[in-house]
Amino acid sequence: MENGSLNHGVPDAASTTISIKGILGLLMETIDESDTRKLISLGIGDPTAYSCFHTPKVAECAAVDSLQSEKFNGYAPTVGLPQTRRAIAEYLSRDLPYNLTSDDVFITSGCTQAIDVALTMLARPGANILLPRPGFPIYELCAAFRHIEVRHFDLLPEKGWEVDLDAIDALTDQNTVAMVIINPGNPCGNVYSYQHLEKIAETAKKLRILVIADEVYGHLAFGGNPFVPMGVFGSIVPILTLGSLSKRWIVPGWRLGWFVTSDPSGMFRKPKIIERFKKYFDILGGPATFIQAAVPQILEQTEEVFFKKTNYLLRQTSELCCAIIKEIPCITCPHRPEGSMAVMVKLNLSLLEDISDDIDFCFKLAKEESVIILPGIFFCRDSSGAKELASHYFCC
Amino acid sequence: MENGSLNHGVPDAASTTISIKGILGLLMETIDESDTRKLISLGIGDPTAYSCFHTPKVAECAAVDSLQSEKFNGYAPTVGLPQTRRAIAEYLSRDLPYNLTSDDVFITSGCTQAIDVALTMLARPGANILLPRPGFPIYELCAAFRHIEVRHFDLLPEKGWEVDLDAIDALTDQNTVAMVIINPGNPCGNVYSYQHLEKIAETAKKLRILVIADEVYGHLAFGGNPFVPMGVFGSIVPILTLGSLSKRWIVPGWRLGWFVTSDPSGMFRKPKIIERFKKYFDILGGPATFIQAAVPQILEQTEEVFFKKTNYLLRQTSELCCAIIKEIPCITCPHRPEGSMAVMVKLNLSLLEDISDDIDFCFKLAKEESVIILPGIFFCRDSSGAKELASHYFCC
Repeated sequence: MENGSLNHGVPDAASTTISIKGILGLLMETIDESDTRKLISLGIGDPTAYSCFHTPKVAECAAVDSLQSEKFNGYAPTVGLPQTRRAIAEYLSRDLPYNLTSDDVFITSGCTQAIDVALTMLARPGANILLPRPGFPIYELCAAFRHIEVRHFDLLPEKGWEVDLDAIDALTDQNTVAMVIINPGNPCGNVYSYQHLEKIAETAKKLRILVIADEVYGHLAFGGNPFVPMGVFGSIVPILTLGSLSKRWIVPGWRLGWFVTSDPSGMFRKPKIIERFKKYFDILGGPATFIQAAVPQILEQTEEVFFKKTNYLLRQTSELCCAIIKEIPCITCPHRPEGSMAVMVKLNLSLLEDISDDIDFCFKLAKEESVIILPGIFFCRDSSGAKELASHYFCC
Repeated sequence: MENGSLNHGVPDAASTTISIKGILGLLMETIDESDTRKLISLGIGDPTAYSCFHTPKVAECAAVDSLQSEKFNGYAPTVGLPQTRRAIAEYLSRDLPYNLTSDDVFITSGCTQAIDVALTMLARPGANILLPRPGFPIYELCAAFRHIEVRHFDLLPEKGWEVDLDAIDALTDQNTVAMVIINPGNPCGNVYSYQHLEKIAETAKKLRILVIADEVYGHLAFGGNPFVPMGVFGSIVPILTLGSLSKRWIVPGWRLGWFVTSDPSGMFRKPKIIERFKKYFDILGGPATFIQAAVPQILEQTEEVFFKKTNYLLRQTSELCCAIIKEIPCITCPHRPEGSMAVMVKLNLSLLEDISDDIDFCFKLAKEESVIILPGIFFCRDSSGAKELASHYFCC
């Protein structure tokens, strides 16, 4: 078997990219099977794993009704059901100075597939993309599979994890296609101000690149800054907005996300581009039709009190988490989380006996304390400072 | 806006590939809005669109129970829930001379995503793949997006749409990675004999290429040949089996498919290959967790009588369809369908007044008779004979 072999020694960046599941698996393996203590897993942003977060009944009922109606067992258009696209356009338009239309919205299998759509649609020979550091590693993995070079810009912990905009210019060239902004931030828990987002848009405009706005944690903001969608600045620079029901509705397993062109200037509304989007969606699986059909009811009927309760719980758990961190001399939190479900902490290696770096720390913490958190290097590729960082989710 | 533009004039085969939705849309547009006759749409293989096919109650109940249990709203492992992988391994092993394990099964968002996984995992610079002609056009589209060259082998209508194995050798070179077999066939309605499938396996072995076996219509066989899964020949040559619940359980909109390594020799069980599969699944959306969780119950509890009824109905509708075709002088059916839900017909252009080719025929049929069928060219790229073919689904 020669031709059909699947590992031809092809140069393949994907083979060197760390996967979140991979590292979690390794950390779990270090825990002694005879350890009777309860495993405290803070390594994955899945709120359903914790008893204080529940999917709203209205969402569950909408999905059950849709399924039992027997009207939605067939194929949906690959870009999504018209009523679902329209409902999401209306939902997102509530916070924008212009109205999105159904045509701007493409339904994806969770935000993960929306990330892949954005990167694949931007891929071309030699293309590079700017990713935040710390950032969410699925972007690196996806860029590797779609053959896009990755360049990192730093987020500044002392400035609430804002983008180091001064350094962006030197990173870009004529092959830079976009920059990715994750807000509210994963894994740093940042929520950017209106002014900072506006500056990001102006910078992207100057550099003639797009902004990919990952808002999977949209509206999960519980600190000083309210959540402002990047699409607000769509008239400055075209935005690709990525989002999903996953976090705000506590249904990550439903795989219902969106890829949205937040672009009142209409740059994306060229027939060739739309045709290319549509064709790409023809080869994707997409989410279940009956879940799509439930979306209008879910968006319309979920009560504000449900969202308030989630943010209240997240604020409580994040405060508790920061208070405990304060009592531990070897760990500090450079910036209190104000959104999402994650926080990045700094390790003081000089105070940690027999700990060489972040990976060593996380593996020993798993083995000795049955607590799983993720090494900073995992979120900060090619960064010397990463070995003093670690991240965990506080939605527990 | 320069760098961020999405159409850079990049050479892109995807832009020249016809999409099934694209041609259906164009055909629909030709129908006069004032036409009051009922549209008869035979252009898409979605059995839920027709009143004689129904999703089994046991499947619906299993999905509702799973959803209402509130245990499956969170993320599944990206390769699929362990119990779902195990249940599908057991289901497929019933018809194999060896047992698949959970590790052989990866859960996908319908068979469409399984096709993408197969092609992406085989892609490398210069790679080419052998596709059947007539075939299912999503393969061409997917190959274009994943940068794999397509080479076509013919299916022979006079031999029940068997593969023209004598011509395969001349198509292959050291960059040929796999050949695709769709059985039961879409769009030809073929069901291959054990002997023919064995010959395909032997040919692939000789050429040192893999076989991708698209069995999305698996078990939907109602003619002389029983359905034999290609995996039966997995010890001759490694097989990638693609399938889904979609057609057999009448739930195409549920998006529950599988990508399976039917390979008792263990060629795919190398750590590097498994790692690459897993990483690729990390960037895919995948199907909803609660639908995955319902699969063991669905596979276990659906009664044989349900499957028998479907095949009985398909035989009836296909026979009716063939009987009517016999009465139309300008259309012949080169081979009666014995499986799947589609049939390929031949147009006698010399008997058709003012009809230049298949496209002309289909557009005039839509406009004049409100009947939608698909032009042969759509399934037979680069074939001069295509202009005398057309295909339609008979599951109506």
